[in-house]
Amino acid sequence: MPLTGMAFGGDYNPEQWDEETWKEDDELMRRARVNLVTVGVFSWALLEPEEGRHEFGWLDAQLERLHANGVRVDLATPTASPPPWFTLAHPEAMPVTADGTRLTHGSRDTYCLAAPAYRRAAARIAAALAERYGDHPAVAMWHIHNEYATVCHCEQSAAAFRVWLRARHGTLDALNEAWGTAFWSQRYGSWEQIMPPRATQWHPNPGHTLDFRRFWSDEALAAYREQRDAVRRHIPSSVPVTTNLMLPGYQNLDLWAFGREVDLVGIDHYMDAPGVDGDADTAFGADRARSFGGGKPWLLIEQGTNTVYLPDRVLPKDPGRILRSSLAHIARGSDGALFFQWRQSRAGAEMWHSAMVPHAGPDTRIFRETAATGEAVAALDEIAGSTVTAAVAVLHDADAWWALDTDGLPSAELDYPATLKRAHRALWDAGVTTDFAHPESDLSRYRLVLAPSLYLVSDAGAASLRRYVEGGGTLLVQYFSGVVDEHHRVRTGGHPGALREVLGIRGEEHRPLAAGAGVALSDGSTGRVWSELLRTEGAETVTSYAAGPLAGAPAVTRHRFGAGTGWYLSTGLDEGAYRVLVARILEESGVAPEVAGLPPGVEAVRRRSADGRSWLFVINNTDREVLVPAAGHELLAAGPVPPEGLSVPAGCAAVVREGPEAAC
Amino acid sequence: MPLTGMAFGGDYNPEQWDEETWKEDDELMRRARVNLVTVGVFSWALLEPEEGRHEFGWLDAQLERLHANGVRVDLATPTASPPPWFTLAHPEAMPVTADGTRLTHGSRDTYCLAAPAYRRAAARIAAALAERYGDHPAVAMWHIHNEYATVCHCEQSAAAFRVWLRARHGTLDALNEAWGTAFWSQRYGSWEQIMPPRATQWHPNPGHTLDFRRFWSDEALAAYREQRDAVRRHIPSSVPVTTNLMLPGYQNLDLWAFGREVDLVGIDHYMDAPGVDGDADTAFGADRARSFGGGKPWLLIEQGTNTVYLPDRVLPKDPGRILRSSLAHIARGSDGALFFQWRQSRAGAEMWHSAMVPHAGPDTRIFRETAATGEAVAALDEIAGSTVTAAVAVLHDADAWWALDTDGLPSAELDYPATLKRAHRALWDAGVTTDFAHPESDLSRYRLVLAPSLYLVSDAGAASLRRYVEGGGTLLVQYFSGVVDEHHRVRTGGHPGALREVLGIRGEEHRPLAAGAGVALSDGSTGRVWSELLRTEGAETVTSYAAGPLAGAPAVTRHRFGAGTGWYLSTGLDEGAYRVLVARILEESGVAPEVAGLPPGVEAVRRRSADGRSWLFVINNTDREVLVPAAGHELLAAGPVPPEGLSVPAGCAAVVREGPEAAC
Amino acid sequence: MPLTGMAFGGDYNPEQWDEETWKEDDELMRRARVNLVTVGVFSWALLEPEEGRHEFGWLDAQLERLHANGVRVDLATPTASPPPWFTLAHPEAMPVTADGTRLTHGSRDTYCLAAPAYRRAAARIAAALAERYGDHPAVAMWHIHNEYATVCHCEQSAAAFRVWLRARHGTLDALNEAWGTAFWSQRYGSWEQIMPPRATQWHPNPGHTLDFRRFWSDEALAAYREQRDAVRRHIPSSVPVTTNLMLPGYQNLDLWAFGREVDLVGIDHYMDAPGVDGDADTAFGADRARSFGGGKPWLLIEQGTNTVYLPDRVLPKDPGRILRSSLAHIARGSDGALFFQWRQSRAGAEMWHSAMVPHAGPDTRIFRETAATGEAVAALDEIAGSTVTAAVAVLHDADAWWALDTDGLPSAELDYPATLKRAHRALWDAGVTTDFAHPESDLSRYRLVLAPSLYLVSDAGAASLRRYVEGGGTLLVQYFSGVVDEHHRVRTGGHPGALREVLGIRGEEHRPLAAGAGVALSDGSTGRVWSELLRTEGAETVTSYAAGPLAGAPAVTRHRFGAGTGWYLSTGLDEGAYRVLVARILEESGVAPEVAGLPPGVEAVRRRSADGRSWLFVINNTDREVLVPAAGHELLAAGPVPPEGLSVPAGCAAVVREGPEAAC
Repeated sequence: MPLTGMAFGGDYNPEQWDEETWKEDDELMRRARVNLVTVGVFSWALLEPEEGRHEFGWLDAQLERLHANGVRVDLATPTASPPPWFTLAHPEAMPVTADGTRLTHGSRDTYCLAAPAYRRAAARIAAALAERYGDHPAVAMWHIHNEYATVCHCEQSAAAFRVWLRARHGTLDALNEAWGTAFWSQRYGSWEQIMPPRATQWHPNPGHTLDFRRFWSDEALAAYREQRDAVRRHIPSSVPVTTNLMLPGYQNLDLWAFGREVDLVGIDHYMDAPGVDGDADTAFGADRARSFGGGKPWLLIEQGTNTVYLPDRVLPKDPGRILRSSLAHIARGSDGALFFQWRQSRAGAEMWHSAMVPHAGPDTRIFRETAATGEAVAALDEIAGSTVTAAVAVLHDADAWWALDTDGLPSAELDYPATLKRAHRALWDAGVTTDFAHPESDLSRYRLVLAPSLYLVSDAGAASLRRYVEGGGTLLVQYFSGVVDEHHRVRTGGHPGALREVLGIRGEEHRPLAAGAGVALSDGSTGRVWSELLRTEGAETVTSYAAGPLAGAPAVTRHRFGAGTGWYLSTGLDEGAYRVLVARILEESGVAPEVAGLPPGVEAVRRRSADGRSWLFVINNTDREVLVPAAGHELLAAGPVPPEGLSVPAGCAAVVREGPEAAC
Repeated sequence: MPLTGMAFGGDYNPEQWDEETWKEDDELMRRARVNLVTVGVFSWALLEPEEGRHEFGWLDAQLERLHANGVRVDLATPTASPPPWFTLAHPEAMPVTADGTRLTHGSRDTYCLAAPAYRRAAARIAAALAERYGDHPAVAMWHIHNEYATVCHCEQSAAAFRVWLRARHGTLDALNEAWGTAFWSQRYGSWEQIMPPRATQWHPNPGHTLDFRRFWSDEALAAYREQRDAVRRHIPSSVPVTTNLMLPGYQNLDLWAFGREVDLVGIDHYMDAPGVDGDADTAFGADRARSFGGGKPWLLIEQGTNTVYLPDRVLPKDPGRILRSSLAHIARGSDGALFFQWRQSRAGAEMWHSAMVPHAGPDTRIFRETAATGEAVAALDEIAGSTVTAAVAVLHDADAWWALDTDGLPSAELDYPATLKRAHRALWDAGVTTDFAHPESDLSRYRLVLAPSLYLVSDAGAASLRRYVEGGGTLLVQYFSGVVDEHHRVRTGGHPGALREVLGIRGEEHRPLAAGAGVALSDGSTGRVWSELLRTEGAETVTSYAAGPLAGAPAVTRHRFGAGTGWYLSTGLDEGAYRVLVARILEESGVAPEVAGLPPGVEAVRRRSADGRSWLFVINNTDREVLVPAAGHELLAAGPVPPEGLSVPAGCAAVVREGPEAAC
Repeated sequence: MPLTGMAFGGDYNPEQWDEETWKEDDELMRRARVNLVTVGVFSWALLEPEEGRHEFGWLDAQLERLHANGVRVDLATPTASPPPWFTLAHPEAMPVTADGTRLTHGSRDTYCLAAPAYRRAAARIAAALAERYGDHPAVAMWHIHNEYATVCHCEQSAAAFRVWLRARHGTLDALNEAWGTAFWSQRYGSWEQIMPPRATQWHPNPGHTLDFRRFWSDEALAAYREQRDAVRRHIPSSVPVTTNLMLPGYQNLDLWAFGREVDLVGIDHYMDAPGVDGDADTAFGADRARSFGGGKPWLLIEQGTNTVYLPDRVLPKDPGRILRSSLAHIARGSDGALFFQWRQSRAGAEMWHSAMVPHAGPDTRIFRETAATGEAVAALDEIAGSTVTAAVAVLHDADAWWALDTDGLPSAELDYPATLKRAHRALWDAGVTTDFAHPESDLSRYRLVLAPSLYLVSDAGAASLRRYVEGGGTLLVQYFSGVVDEHHRVRTGGHPGALREVLGIRGEEHRPLAAGAGVALSDGSTGRVWSELLRTEGAETVTSYAAGPLAGAPAVTRHRFGAGTGWYLSTGLDEGAYRVLVARILEESGVAPEVAGLPPGVEAVRRRSADGRSWLFVINNTDREVLVPAAGHELLAAGPVPPEGLSVPAGCAAVVREGPEAAC
């Protein structure tokens, strides 16, 4: 059963339920138009109850049942949750924290990804599954592991880290030079002296910690590839293999690298705020998911029907949100919308995590909205495979993130994801569809590129940005960017070292601001968090500091470079002023919103097919009806858009197949 | 010397002082009317200076001296503080934290209660003491250990945990089913795979952690019983054996179970707030202490003369409070009032803990108030043995507490003790005397039962509540109650699963509110913390939600069931509104205050004897004099209550032996 | 090259740079008038790349080059940063935290100072350096280690602790008595039962933890002396040996004891606040540095050019501050001003720590101000060797600090350094130059002594204070002082035990206030944090409590004792009221400001030479010009002070060689 059209469904864990419930599941899945479920993700203990002994009978039956019910299966390897027997058999494969605490089973993910015993066990169960179900007609997709995210500091990880370091640096001299071990007498005289960055007396070495993060991302990717290759040997080439990448908080992976190795990008996304902030967060996640694949198909593998994760509680979603959030992902390219999970668990660590069928059963708001969303998604089948294009990109680089997440930087308010999110939000508020891009990628297709937090930039990245601007692009660089190289060493001689020429400036000093403090700027706005002493070297001053020790010095600059323009923003602007600046740069670089004139909170995004068709998604996150200029056929209500435009009620969404032919 | 009349005294640690001080102690104890002191609680290192070698001489002399001075002894087994030699001899008996840190001596309670070496050593010293002092005329009571509270995650505790689990669950299949190990691939294939919930990667299994708490409570109880039985063999049957249970913060024990095993309930209670909040907290503690014994005598074994514990400091008590707090306990059934400790230590970890004789000596406000309190308590001797009855009970269940104290619940604002305290406070403000009760107990003697936080309720508990309401009782259930069974598994099909029929409602969704947020209700009040989407199935709607996604849906319901009434409150009402609701339900259920018309902060509680006598305690916690309608003989000032009523000055208390004969 | 005149320079780590940079260094050092650099502090891995194999060639060349450039060298032993090979060779010498985590290399200071392997290795490299460079003409000073600060809880530290305890207490009985081990059954039966205060169940024993801190201070001092003696054997007697002591946060050392063992006191000081609070903090540090040496020369070895350390960020310094901060130290006796470090590191844990030559190079505000500061310091050469005298002292005692930093004290708001800093600040605001003094030292040269936080005072200290007041001194003691003896045992009978007679009071109760709460005093001011119930026994009441339970009782008292006066302040006064009280006591004790009538934020301090010359430093930390009455020759601008007085612009400083002859 190939993976075609729009997918709708979620994780399905029938091993938690009895036969009677399975029967109800069959019926409810039909009612909800479920056509794809992820099976087996936490089933290792059932599939291999003792080391080396497999029990597939129950899974055979489940796949058969699902198949009979017309539901395709995304078959998961269960390797994120080794069974308790694994701990006893391989205690050395349990993960160890930086301070030496060895974790044990009792939740999930208790393994060291670099432990040979774990890797062997994981590859074995993956291969066994693929061997058995490689040709199963129900299986439409393979799902390796779950949310790769863990790191470990054990001796086995130390050994793997050393191998990785040899490959990266070649010689100890090169490593010592890269890490600046001359400082604090850290020069390594042999490879075996190098350890994971375990608990130590003061700040660790920033090159050391950066490489350790790179190592773990590569190690996770290697673990993924090992399983993927084991599975691939047994399955048709048309069946995609992927993993589900957790957004946004998990930062242990270079998602660009994962994007290259998966057949389609799969993400898990849980809103982190209620209201319109949550909608913006959804777009932030979906735009990243689309971007990481570089044009590959992508799919929302997990979301919650009623889950908004705050640090100290889980808020529910308001009515209408299940549909809107699902469509917000699909609008940005997802070929479907899945949930974790089908049926809310009665027990276990996530028993209070929402589901498509809640504890209270199908006679609930949640199930009704879920089923309605399934209906809506089914109406969008024709859109599957079409894509989204953007004229603006925000730069995203795991190296820059990891480097910025280092002890001993000048301010604790340097928050990589928050800064990127803020840049994305300003564009989202402006109605502009946004890609994310790696600094070293070809940026020439963008009219505007934002580098809100590019603390670390490699030489290749700097050259790429230079080429981009020289070739006519507009680049906005924000404070504390471009200052360290790929080894986390400062580019000396003036900031932002790698980008000085493109931006036509020279910075002398970073001047963080006190918590809550602001600095007045010449245009009446206020800078926050950070300021810099810089002078122009070719750039013009757009806004100056208007008070304090920097009074009169440039705060925002613009530099004509080659055929393009390089902007620099040396402080953290207040919300409104930042939006104004972004709007100005959008205008100057000729970027228009997807649909002009929409009120805040109303999203408009287009998907386009290779054959020239286009679909306009309008998502009304506000509490007022909105009238949107559009022409064509609306797919959810299945009717033509009237001449006066598309009316979208408060909290609702619409999808228009555009074109005059549909309006009749 | 039997334990009769009202006890007054405290912990007495003469080993910290010299002979001259002992002489002063004799005199000061007489002045303060001290008649009971706890001796030996931290004396293990003196009583057994080397393993197996006992030195009782000093204790012989102390008991002799106290006896000669007319002071009875509550003799403590010193097992909460093993001496340093114990660590060296039995390193494996030191406790281990969840992350594997092994604690060592240096404070107190450094042992694993499940370690055989510790248990043997504890039983040995307890038996040796009982053998020597079992018939000592000074000894009026035995005091096992001190404030049982510790847990441990070592291998010995793992072994004991497994034994306990086998006894509880019988089979691994039953355990796997109870814990829902199908989730996250946690299925156990052998008993030895089960460990204490040690440090793990994500949330632990809620069934696992709940059973671990149950295990430790049972293990502590077993340790208590072991010592109690060892002591009992050597002492007269008239001499009670107990332990001092710490209130309110220590939640590692099921105090109902302890209540069943002690001869009298002993509690330690330290106020957690100044002012009237502290008075309410005192009543909260005393009412629980009385309730845990189910009618047994009880005794306040520890309080502080000048100690109000806040998280970051210790506030002093204001003048008058030593008496008021002591009487507040006695009013609620304590047959006396003891303190920790007699003389404030010069050194050691608790050198700044207040005492009856402070560092500054007897010429102090504290000693004077202490002596006056001793005088007052002595005037109440006739009341000893009488009891307190209540028409209202608040449900208290350690299982519910432990279950609610679990990672991964929908809101961090679900605070079990705070919620119970709030319910008790509303009743205290209403002047109503309150019991606590276990859900599975016979509730028929109560007119009203409150279940403010019964997240977990067993099948037996649910049946008990049903019987209670059916039989004519009034029950108020508050949000997020009744939702999980005794294994911490959700009762599916609609909330609150176990209580739906009694309450005549069906809940679909729990909808926690954001921090600080409120939701308007139809009666003008505001809901906090939590809300629920529910519908009535037989109940009437008393108050509805008036805004937000739940607008129009029931917030407070009332259901006639059998001969009784089931109320449900689905949100956290604002202080005032909660008080109004409780007042209404009190009135509807026919519960009157002990004395009508008292201003807030004035407490009135009655004790009654089997022969029909009654004593009215009036405690004026306000700064104004109050006139209370009463008739009889006031015991503290030793005079008749005048016809116009009992005048109690600001900050003072009075105790009236009720009846017309005393008024003449 | 002897160490004469004013020193200017900083840490120089040429091993981080290449030859071309060294050439630029030579030129820039000349421009900045650098004449002293600290070399080798983090060079162990280069000097001894393998255990026992030394490589001195590169250091020979560097010393030669510096010498040729006229720069003297403060040669450091590199023992604060053992190389990675040390970890592998001596894993048992790695430090262990209280909870048993063994730290490893990866930052710096990863060693147990008590580990024999470490001590041997440290002494060996120190001796080898001294042997080679003992006569080197460039070396003007030796610098042992770096910022001694670490503690360890390993078995080797346990063994050393026991040796130290035997020496201190003589017998186990004495130790048991000193620590009050009768409490909580902690009596030690053998020395081997004593451990470092490792992780334990509740509060540790306060005597135990206090002795552990004393032990570590002594152990660090022993480690210092070992190296110092090893170096001393090879160097001329005219060359001083010292170490750099970190101010203010590191509290693991008794700096009075270090002051006795160094040839000159070297301190590192980093501002902890911007603005005038930072200036006051600078004076606080400098006054302590001068005091610890008891008249010895002292030197600011480290400061930052652009570094204000806040807990969550590093603020920059405003223009002019490099000069002002340098002069603020010199004014208080430092014979120069050094920085960490010469050139800002490109990599490593402190790459964002500011330097004399910042990342952006010499064409920067920072380097220009640094060079101008070098110029200014050079103009002050004649002042080197002169001293500062003060009429007021604030008592400082590491024992009191350590004792106050104990779990279980009555309030978390008892902050030793903050309280001392506040007292110093009140004197700084009053324009008075202040010493710090140890309570046991001869205080007779001071007109006024403040004891703002002398929780612990030894018998000798109490006797010293008594002698001081009896002899005519004025003493201000603040709340919770004098209450425990040198073993951390309460002085019973009334507070403040050791000082009751001198102060003419008797305290009964410490009554901490709730967070944020205040208590009204009779003079209209407000007490904070703390209050006490006390009565006068000879003293007069200056201010009383005016509300609450203490209403009418004394709050501030004054007692004529012998020829002097003892004041007692029993509460934490509001800022303004405290300043008023200190001003009154200054006036009564006849202490005048250095220069009368200066506005707040303008500092005036004098240095005097043995031959009667004097220099007045005026540092204007405000944003307005100030005119200061002075006569003489101004050294920075090199001209006479005009008759109308010394004009010091906003943010600037001046130094006047006083005397009429210079005015012409």
